Amino acid sequence: MKQLSTVLRKFGFVLLSLTLFGLAHQANAQSTDPLPSWNEGKAKQAIMQFVAKVTKEGSSDFVPPAERIATFDNDGCLWSEQPMYFQLFFAIDRVKALAPQHPEWKNKEPFASLLKGDVKAALAGGEHAILEIIMATHAGMTTEEFEQIVKDWVATAKHPTRKRHYTELVYQPMLEILDYLRANDFKTFIVSGGGIEFMRPWAEAVYGIPPEQVVGSSSKTRFEIRDGKSVIVRLPELNFMNDKVGKPISINQHIGRRPIASFGNSDGDLQMLQWATSGEGARFALYVHHTDAEREWAYDRKSSIGKLDKGLDEAKKEGWTVVDMKKDWKVIYPYMLK
Amino acid sequence: MKQLSTVLRKFGFVLLSLTLFGLAHQANAQSTDPLPSWNEGKAKQAIMQFVAKVTKEGSSDFVPPAERIATFDNDGCLWSEQPMYFQLFFAIDRVKALAPQHPEWKNKEPFASLLKGDVKAALAGGEHAILEIIMATHAGMTTEEFEQIVKDWVATAKHPTRKRHYTELVYQPMLEILDYLRANDFKTFIVSGGGIEFMRPWAEAVYGIPPEQVVGSSSKTRFEIRDGKSVIVRLPELNFMNDKVGKPISINQHIGRRPIASFGNSDGDLQMLQWATSGEGARFALYVHHTDAEREWAYDRKSSIGKLDKGLDEAKKEGWTVVDMKKDWKVIYPYMLK
Repeated sequence: MKQLSTVLRKFGFVLLSLTLFGLAHQANAQSTDPLPSWNEGKAKQAIMQFVAKVTKEGSSDFVPPAERIATFDNDGCLWSEQPMYFQLFFAIDRVKALAPQHPEWKNKEPFASLLKGDVKAALAGGEHAILEIIMATHAGMTTEEFEQIVKDWVATAKHPTRKRHYTELVYQPMLEILDYLRANDFKTFIVSGGGIEFMRPWAEAVYGIPPEQVVGSSSKTRFEIRDGKSVIVRLPELNFMNDKVGKPISINQHIGRRPIASFGNSDGDLQMLQWATSGEGARFALYVHHTDAEREWAYDRKSSIGKLDKGLDEAKKEGWTVVDMKKDWKVIYPYMLK
Repeated sequence: MKQLSTVLRKFGFVLLSLTLFGLAHQANAQSTDPLPSWNEGKAKQAIMQFVAKVTKEGSSDFVPPAERIATFDNDGCLWSEQPMYFQLFFAIDRVKALAPQHPEWKNKEPFASLLKGDVKAALAGGEHAILEIIMATHAGMTTEEFEQIVKDWVATAKHPTRKRHYTELVYQPMLEILDYLRANDFKTFIVSGGGIEFMRPWAEAVYGIPPEQVVGSSSKTRFEIRDGKSVIVRLPELNFMNDKVGKPISINQHIGRRPIASFGNSDGDLQMLQWATSGEGARFALYVHHTDAEREWAYDRKSSIGKLDKGLDEAKKEGWTVVDMKKDWKVIYPYMLK
């Protein structure tokens, strides 16, 4: 220690700091591939070139860290969405759990079919049936009670065919993109059609995205004092549907800056990608194209879930990056690693 | 440099890093008073004791950095609000600027009185009149056009009696609180009844609070494609009134975590303070009490603007911190420093 402090005095703190900075910088430059689950190709190259240019100080494309906002859809972009949105599996599990308190559901659609195990018949009622299922299962409790219900479900429920927890069905290559952007001083947001309070309880652990950076569809709520403590109660009424034109509107409301990069996978993300790319300066948009029937699912223009039709045309016209899941991704889910 | 690298090899990088960390830590502990514009007293002591305990690792009151959320009202808490909310001065200036395009205003209240310079008569119409003035001046343009209008106004307009730019009328002691909390890994948010898009254009420069951490009242908006570029247009319709029970609701919607500290000055902030303080663990609530008729303004229980009545009673009952502006603050505005 004596020798060390002599050197500190001799060379001065500043010189030493500069040297250490140099060493750290060198270590960084030698670091390994930030996107190891991506095959070399146009998609990987496009994202890396974009990040390189907006982070290069003095370049005309440089963007200050505070303005490096990136938005991600969730269903089909960060985790799978087949054979139906995972939140619907949650809702159906909740119908089963709540059925003893609702004897009337035995004779009332869509609940009757659900309780008999006939999901297809239950969902035959279309959007109206889905909304009824959501409202019956997502309202009536405090926000803190709902958070616990979601946490319990995420910890236990499994996907019917993959036999994995739903949060295991997240895309390893997209987790790498999130990490890579944050390592380059981007702030990453989820902007999803899914329920904002359905995603927040696990988004931080799974994606590294804190609650305040999760934007989604929402229910109306009511503030109440119960036994001298304040609570917020979830009401069975839609507040905001965060899909299509709803996405740029909620981005403006919630973030207040135009993202410089945006990631989606369906026509529901089209307006978000348009919003991000029509600002000034360097911009980046990416569509995940589901092309891998073997390792994940293959669907696009005619799918009832995650339809990608207009978006594919717009991506071609605008030169957006389209990920070919089958060719571009070495692995799909983290559990496939090694 | 040769000697230095010898030492680096000899002692190893880790040991050296630890030493540097120790030096930095020592420098930090020796730093000066973080709240120099606060007189010693109960209020200053309360905030500093709170921050000390929630940041002390191993303590039962320790709060991880990600959960250190602090919310601040704006009008009357971070800047002045007399003789009327500053946003209303903005709206009136806009009425004057837009009058040539609206010949019909000459014969239509509340515009006719405003254009004659009789603000009192114009506002005699109460909330309805104010809403009409706001809608006529805050809608019809894109969000980016509105941002520029606000920036131009903030850069030029002056308070009628203080003869200062409005952003000079921010409270120096509260700026110090914001800095102090952020230095202790708090995330600071504005949660104001003011317009979200009226505050965002200058909140980052003035308060160090980025747009995504500003929550406020909002108008409805519409997404449009104009000449191949996407824009968001502001509509003359209220989307959300961020006052009273609206504050905890918007905090839940926007932040998704209960704040552990909350700062306000009026009954409009009461529910926000209740929401923050009725969570588990250490909590902090503070009311700025306007007691300084000489350096600022003095008002509370009977004021039409920034009324603080129920809140004063609740603060006493709950043991919240109440700042006596006259006694607790050495200076009010930054320009009074030195």
